[in-house]
Amino acid sequence: MKVVTFGEIMLRLAPEGYLRFNQADRFQVTYGGGEANVAVSLANYGLETKFVTKLPKHEIGQAAVNDLRQFGIDTSYITRGGDRIGIYFLEKGASQRPSKVIYDRARSAISEATTADFNWNEIFEGVDWFHFTGITPALGDNVTEICIEACKVAKAKNITISCDLNYRKKLWSREKAGQEMGKLMEYVDVCIANEEDAADVFGIHAEATDITSGKLNHEGYKDVAKKLADRFDFKYVAITLRGSISANDNNWAAMLYNGKEYFFSKSYAVRIVDRVGGGDSFGAGLIYSLLNKYEEQEAIEFATAASCLKHTVEGDYNRVTLEEVKALAGGDGSGRVQR
Amino acid sequence: MKVVTFGEIMLRLAPEGYLRFNQADRFQVTYGGGEANVAVSLANYGLETKFVTKLPKHEIGQAAVNDLRQFGIDTSYITRGGDRIGIYFLEKGASQRPSKVIYDRARSAISEATTADFNWNEIFEGVDWFHFTGITPALGDNVTEICIEACKVAKAKNITISCDLNYRKKLWSREKAGQEMGKLMEYVDVCIANEEDAADVFGIHAEATDITSGKLNHEGYKDVAKKLADRFDFKYVAITLRGSISANDNNWAAMLYNGKEYFFSKSYAVRIVDRVGGGDSFGAGLIYSLLNKYEEQEAIEFATAASCLKHTVEGDYNRVTLEEVKALAGGDGSGRVQR
Amino acid sequence: MKVVTFGEIMLRLAPEGYLRFNQADRFQVTYGGGEANVAVSLANYGLETKFVTKLPKHEIGQAAVNDLRQFGIDTSYITRGGDRIGIYFLEKGASQRPSKVIYDRARSAISEATTADFNWNEIFEGVDWFHFTGITPALGDNVTEICIEACKVAKAKNITISCDLNYRKKLWSREKAGQEMGKLMEYVDVCIANEEDAADVFGIHAEATDITSGKLNHEGYKDVAKKLADRFDFKYVAITLRGSISANDNNWAAMLYNGKEYFFSKSYAVRIVDRVGGGDSFGAGLIYSLLNKYEEQEAIEFATAASCLKHTVEGDYNRVTLEEVKALAGGDGSGRVQR
Amino acid sequence: MKVVTFGEIMLRLAPEGYLRFNQADRFQVTYGGGEANVAVSLANYGLETKFVTKLPKHEIGQAAVNDLRQFGIDTSYITRGGDRIGIYFLEKGASQRPSKVIYDRARSAISEATTADFNWNEIFEGVDWFHFTGITPALGDNVTEICIEACKVAKAKNITISCDLNYRKKLWSREKAGQEMGKLMEYVDVCIANEEDAADVFGIHAEATDITSGKLNHEGYKDVAKKLADRFDFKYVAITLRGSISANDNNWAAMLYNGKEYFFSKSYAVRIVDRVGGGDSFGAGLIYSLLNKYEEQEAIEFATAASCLKHTVEGDYNRVTLEEVKALAGGDGSGRVQR
Amino acid sequence: MKVVTFGEIMLRLAPEGYLRFNQADRFQVTYGGGEANVAVSLANYGLETKFVTKLPKHEIGQAAVNDLRQFGIDTSYITRGGDRIGIYFLEKGASQRPSKVIYDRARSAISEATTADFNWNEIFEGVDWFHFTGITPALGDNVTEICIEACKVAKAKNITISCDLNYRKKLWSREKAGQEMGKLMEYVDVCIANEEDAADVFGIHAEATDITSGKLNHEGYKDVAKKLADRFDFKYVAITLRGSISANDNNWAAMLYNGKEYFFSKSYAVRIVDRVGGGDSFGAGLIYSLLNKYEEQEAIEFATAASCLKHTVEGDYNRVTLEEVKALAGGDGSGRVQR
Amino acid sequence: MKVVTFGEIMLRLAPEGYLRFNQADRFQVTYGGGEANVAVSLANYGLETKFVTKLPKHEIGQAAVNDLRQFGIDTSYITRGGDRIGIYFLEKGASQRPSKVIYDRARSAISEATTADFNWNEIFEGVDWFHFTGITPALGDNVTEICIEACKVAKAKNITISCDLNYRKKLWSREKAGQEMGKLMEYVDVCIANEEDAADVFGIHAEATDITSGKLNHEGYKDVAKKLADRFDFKYVAITLRGSISANDNNWAAMLYNGKEYFFSKSYAVRIVDRVGGGDSFGAGLIYSLLNKYEEQEAIEFATAASCLKHTVEGDYNRVTLEEVKALAGGDGSGRVQR
Repeated sequence: MKVVTFGEIMLRLAPEGYLRFNQADRFQVTYGGGEANVAVSLANYGLETKFVTKLPKHEIGQAAVNDLRQFGIDTSYITRGGDRIGIYFLEKGASQRPSKVIYDRARSAISEATTADFNWNEIFEGVDWFHFTGITPALGDNVTEICIEACKVAKAKNITISCDLNYRKKLWSREKAGQEMGKLMEYVDVCIANEEDAADVFGIHAEATDITSGKLNHEGYKDVAKKLADRFDFKYVAITLRGSISANDNNWAAMLYNGKEYFFSKSYAVRIVDRVGGGDSFGAGLIYSLLNKYEEQEAIEFATAASCLKHTVEGDYNRVTLEEVKALAGGDGSGRVQR
Repeated sequence: MKVVTFGEIMLRLAPEGYLRFNQADRFQVTYGGGEANVAVSLANYGLETKFVTKLPKHEIGQAAVNDLRQFGIDTSYITRGGDRIGIYFLEKGASQRPSKVIYDRARSAISEATTADFNWNEIFEGVDWFHFTGITPALGDNVTEICIEACKVAKAKNITISCDLNYRKKLWSREKAGQEMGKLMEYVDVCIANEEDAADVFGIHAEATDITSGKLNHEGYKDVAKKLADRFDFKYVAITLRGSISANDNNWAAMLYNGKEYFFSKSYAVRIVDRVGGGDSFGAGLIYSLLNKYEEQEAIEFATAASCLKHTVEGDYNRVTLEEVKALAGGDGSGRVQR
Repeated sequence: MKVVTFGEIMLRLAPEGYLRFNQADRFQVTYGGGEANVAVSLANYGLETKFVTKLPKHEIGQAAVNDLRQFGIDTSYITRGGDRIGIYFLEKGASQRPSKVIYDRARSAISEATTADFNWNEIFEGVDWFHFTGITPALGDNVTEICIEACKVAKAKNITISCDLNYRKKLWSREKAGQEMGKLMEYVDVCIANEEDAADVFGIHAEATDITSGKLNHEGYKDVAKKLADRFDFKYVAITLRGSISANDNNWAAMLYNGKEYFFSKSYAVRIVDRVGGGDSFGAGLIYSLLNKYEEQEAIEFATAASCLKHTVEGDYNRVTLEEVKALAGGDGSGRVQR
Repeated sequence: MKVVTFGEIMLRLAPEGYLRFNQADRFQVTYGGGEANVAVSLANYGLETKFVTKLPKHEIGQAAVNDLRQFGIDTSYITRGGDRIGIYFLEKGASQRPSKVIYDRARSAISEATTADFNWNEIFEGVDWFHFTGITPALGDNVTEICIEACKVAKAKNITISCDLNYRKKLWSREKAGQEMGKLMEYVDVCIANEEDAADVFGIHAEATDITSGKLNHEGYKDVAKKLADRFDFKYVAITLRGSISANDNNWAAMLYNGKEYFFSKSYAVRIVDRVGGGDSFGAGLIYSLLNKYEEQEAIEFATAASCLKHTVEGDYNRVTLEEVKALAGGDGSGRVQR
Repeated sequence: MKVVTFGEIMLRLAPEGYLRFNQADRFQVTYGGGEANVAVSLANYGLETKFVTKLPKHEIGQAAVNDLRQFGIDTSYITRGGDRIGIYFLEKGASQRPSKVIYDRARSAISEATTADFNWNEIFEGVDWFHFTGITPALGDNVTEICIEACKVAKAKNITISCDLNYRKKLWSREKAGQEMGKLMEYVDVCIANEEDAADVFGIHAEATDITSGKLNHEGYKDVAKKLADRFDFKYVAITLRGSISANDNNWAAMLYNGKEYFFSKSYAVRIVDRVGGGDSFGAGLIYSLLNKYEEQEAIEFATAASCLKHTVEGDYNRVTLEEVKALAGGDGSGRVQR
Repeated sequence: MKVVTFGEIMLRLAPEGYLRFNQADRFQVTYGGGEANVAVSLANYGLETKFVTKLPKHEIGQAAVNDLRQFGIDTSYITRGGDRIGIYFLEKGASQRPSKVIYDRARSAISEATTADFNWNEIFEGVDWFHFTGITPALGDNVTEICIEACKVAKAKNITISCDLNYRKKLWSREKAGQEMGKLMEYVDVCIANEEDAADVFGIHAEATDITSGKLNHEGYKDVAKKLADRFDFKYVAITLRGSISANDNNWAAMLYNGKEYFFSKSYAVRIVDRVGGGDSFGAGLIYSLLNKYEEQEAIEFATAASCLKHTVEGDYNRVTLEEVKALAGGDGSGRVQR
């Protein structure tokens, strides 16, 4: 099975441990971004995966490519050019102190790309699934245009399309997001969202959900999923449910709606190592399980277990194997040593 | 608003992570000390802050000065001379294993300073607040004398004086502490103490408080605050309330008494990154909020939130901004990522 | 008092922090192994301790020797020769992700040793206690033979013998283990086991104990201890009781059976720094307390406190002092800073 | 004596040691830039130094400010605003492999600053010397305009102005540089250049100098200095003379021309730790010695010794004291341990 | 152009900097081996490169695969199985202290592979060049057999075959090496050797060459090359010429013989960062230049420049680009900063 | 053969690499001191070695003991008590920037020790050689007294006594040193000095030796050795000859005088990794070779080779084996890789 994801990959710079930005004399260097993170997960699960983006020709751009290639991802459709790679600075939070992200992504190569940079007919040859997130069109009207073109070609080739809403308020306004994402949703089969995205992008609210309490409002989520599916005719809507107890401790679960029924996963009490990319790892888990025709309950358990594990891995990427996800989804979360 | 703090700043040497002293082949190098920690907090909140001490002329002494200057602290009244900088070794505890501090501070430059080293009339020019802790007079009779001189000059200039009792049994006996601190308390307007200081220094006990349980005895604390205020005629008495569950997990709250009423802060369940300087960050929060005429409840919430955040920051210094403290005091402790 | 332990010491290579194997560009280098770990604990408590093994002559073999010598362990009976030191790779788990151990210990010097490599009469001169674990005979028939010879000599010299069952399924089958360990048990006075060993090696099951729940089944454990003692005529049977909540959080307690009564220790809620060697540190605590004629309840509390502390120390070795164990066994687990 | 420098300060990200970009999983974090580097040197020598620039309000911008403040630099005239801080990536070369710099500085706050961002009348109050480099005007026409305004105000206040030509081909063409720098040179009293700048910016060539050989062509340098002084009526022209043997080994010397005579410094055989900022440390040494009325020979020796030492210090900044520079200029370069 | 290399890839564990084995508490983790190193170089130069070996299925084996994939190497013909990956420990020498290598490679997966593990007809489909070194057949008779089979298939497909003699005395005796390598040489077109290999393997000596002096004996090398070419009918013989001044400083040059003429490269005075893989990087440079029909002098200059650069790169792999090699071969070895 | 050394061991704190004190956020932690360094060398060569000192009971004192024990040194005569361990801060120099040492050793446990702390009759039981340096008596009159007592007991037991003059101007004046060392020299058989000690302590000057040039004045050294031997009736006088080219590069050689003839070693061009302890490693080499009855030329070659190697090892201790010293003394200093 073959998958394509399209979006931005950034250089991520993070102080070590719980150091604050102004006390770090070193930054850990990794790479990541919504769609790249999904690509890594899928390659780790054994799917043939292409990641499509644009990156500058210099050594840092190349390092991002190398980083992807180690997982066996096909990077041959990454267009090289432009001036810079997007950067984000990440300071890991602890207890009552939240994690902080400073973006320095404006004018990145992908954000200045044009439709001429990508040959979607060639890229989508023999492909089964196409995934992107709401971050990609938010990079600029030119990139929205590329997304639309990609969706059209994908649709014409009968490729399943998934989109994670992933609203980023630093990139565009709610109004603009709603308008542009609305257009793109026409092509989308599987919609993934967290508890805030539907409200931010489409003004669809879960009733009475307090995102800072850690308690979940099942009925509210069902309502949101149904409204989303009804408005855009999605085959599936998946919603991740994060209960933030502190920067170290979260509860994590998810729900899948197939237009008829609602499937809730187990909920995990997660002690966080690195929560960035948690949503992406969920999306990848869902794509994998739907591509492999898992039953809905099994699918949502797989996706949630995958993303639960992501929270224990440093960096954006979910460096876990199929076997590890299956083991957790199958029930052993006791963390006993494996010899 | 201008503040002066006076005391010792030490070189702090700590194994990385949870390594024990005898397995560390590197020590993390930071600087800190009760009054220096308060100065850093206040400078971070935007106050003009002078830190006064004595440090040797060599490169390590200079490094301590540089470290303070990065926060914009005025270090021009640090007398340079003497032979050594005080040192403390810190091993971070975990779970049931407590943190361990080894002091090597005898004969430090400040502990051998004399009244001739400081021109308090000049130092206090235009200053609004003077802060010191019980550690400073404990460094020696000569330093007690300096403290008394400083207090007299401050009082003559109508400067508010705060003191954190901060009893250190390695530096002096309870008897000596009670006697010397008693003299100094005559000048003090705002008294800060933790749950043990009042007992250690002045023999004032909270009834039936078990410091190892994490449960708080509100009535006992009220009683202690009232006795302290009555004996020394303080305008304010503030007491921090630490509940030690383990070396990793503490409950943290505080109380403020204005001679009439008692104001209790929220209690925080803190997962600890570094708890050294927790009390100092509380003192600084209190000074800031009282200087800025916060209402008592608001003041104690600000001070407690500030010190809650300190527990999440490596090193003695509380590297947080005014905005961050206000955000936590205002209610969001869920630790969600800030993008 | 003099103790001898005999077994394999391995080079342990572990990514830093919670990094996964495939993202580590450095491995932390320590050394360890069941019996070496016990030796370190006992040397730390002040006993004269010999560790006996075989190690190659090269620099890595020497580094393992040096590592042991720092604790004051007598390494003069370590035979030098053979081709390699056993290696194990350790990836620390977090939350729902378990720790992972990859062994690369085949063909190690000790696994190819013969009875000619050790002069037990000389080694046991003046010795009070001999300890080994089920890992040692599992290294090969030749090593089982060495164990039997050692036991015979020890028995002849009236030396108390303890054995930690420590079943390793990668080294031998349950059948083989049961058969060989059965022979060795004839010499053993004190048997130590965890909740699975008795079942794996001797087919003795605790009834209805769910090792992944964290809840303990006291009656089940009593039953196992009694069956073990009855079958092999042990003076003492000690069983450690681990409740795995996650890779970060475990409950930890133990039980001692003296053939008549059952003594349960306090249970500790442990936030884990490094749990490898936890069982060994328990064994060492038990040996120390029995050698020093502690009462049974005191003995099991000492051993459990010792191993509770081990979980907070990086590396296989339990780098704690007698005073620290006593302090915890005596009741203060609040982790307050010791100044 | 008071000095102002004006220009860009960048976040510098460098792999550790001799690692290449694509094998680094950490970058060392420091800050630097031509004029900031000069400011640090001068503050280290005890001058009152202001550094003027524009930096974003976020934490990385603040970290750059803190970094400068540690040296006692006055940062109160740094305008806060704009979107980003310029970044440069540095890979340290070794032997025949050259160091590599990747700039990511476009759209930095300072490059988008306007004349409204700086009040030069206030900045230059009581100031003796103003320094900038050819990099600053190269940031954009708007910044050239700010430079011109600064020069005009400085001139009106009789402040000595120095400029290091510092040609950067990535920022502007030779033609544009010649034209804009030509205008600025009218205000400049002291011109600093390396062996290539005069040719790149003003088309003035040293005859027959092979910059890759390490041998110096004294007559050629004299010729260049005279032409520069004649064309722009400089009081002093200083030229640094670098002989590159390899990325590790350079010969380093300099020449000062006062319009009449030529003064050559000693030449140092330098084993390089970090050569970035070498020219800036020379400029600062020259400013210091001219401000302090050193004789020409003494001045050029001081400046060259200062910059020789810079090559032994990690980071852009020349972390050396006045005493250290004087000691080397005075003749002891044997590197014997100072106890 | 397509290349295949075949051999062992090992886990390399090295103390940081110049630390000795017994003082390192961390080992740097990289991967490497003669033929893997060649594959990395060729992939870096843009050739389609397959690396063939056998590696265990566990995570460390996978990490080695990932490490290769980052360069775009085709790893799909790496057979997975066996028990262990070969390991070597490397301690970097300095000045008069030599680097030290401890091998722990016995029983590695590749050393226990059989001819059934590799389908050479498929592997060599469309391939232009096959490379292996003398280390591979030395791993065991079974691996010699695989080499012979590979050579036969390659020859049948008209693939050019190169071999670096690379004698390892720890793996086999000179007699055995001479006998087995002699058989393999029948298939080899291009023979690569250092100054000692020809003597060790085939008893062919350069007259009067003192390998510890750094002075080269040109006539001696010519003699060796001619004898080698005459005996085995090689198209090309290339010999690297290392002059060891100390562990930090080497002179490095090479010679190419085409059966008629001798071509000597420039000699480089190299300050060493990491000299392991130096010969492999030379071999790769030669393969690249011969595959691209470079003239002999150009070919030997390219190969020598490539390997000169390798000495400046940490790890076994030569992380340099085609452009970088060409720039050095073209003459600029002054190491000036590239901005 | 059994050796005793007596003196101070300090905690050494050093920034990593070439970082300056004020930019280090970590210090490397090692231990060392003249006589401890000699003890480590001798233990490494296989001699039974006791190191005698006084150290505080706290964990840092224990870590120093553990550090010594790893080499197999007998630490059972280290008296435990006193308040602190001496500390020295070391900043490594580079090129023209010298290394810098800041001592913080006043009031260390050993400097406050008394004759009651050491039972020399027991310590010297069966011992062949006693070594101390001029640093030990310089710690205070009380320590001088201990030295005298030790020398008397040693002499009475016919133990050979060696002393390295090792003048430290921070500890005592030249006058005081001359007077006290003069008394001690009566007991000394073997005197070791560097090129400055004889002048500093006894006013004995080598004629016309320029210690900063690297050229050696053989006749001058002979003269100094003869004067020393004549004045104090030494059996041997050994002088180390250091030529400082820069902080990175030194020439290193030595001379031995047996009262009749002068023996000069080879001279080594050393690229320095860490030169602290260089003299001590020479002393240890000399002790070893004289104890083993080496011929004078062989002895001085062994001692010089040993100390040449020390310059390549991080930390105070000379972590080299007998075989390594012999290999270098025997002639191979080319630094070729040892596989």
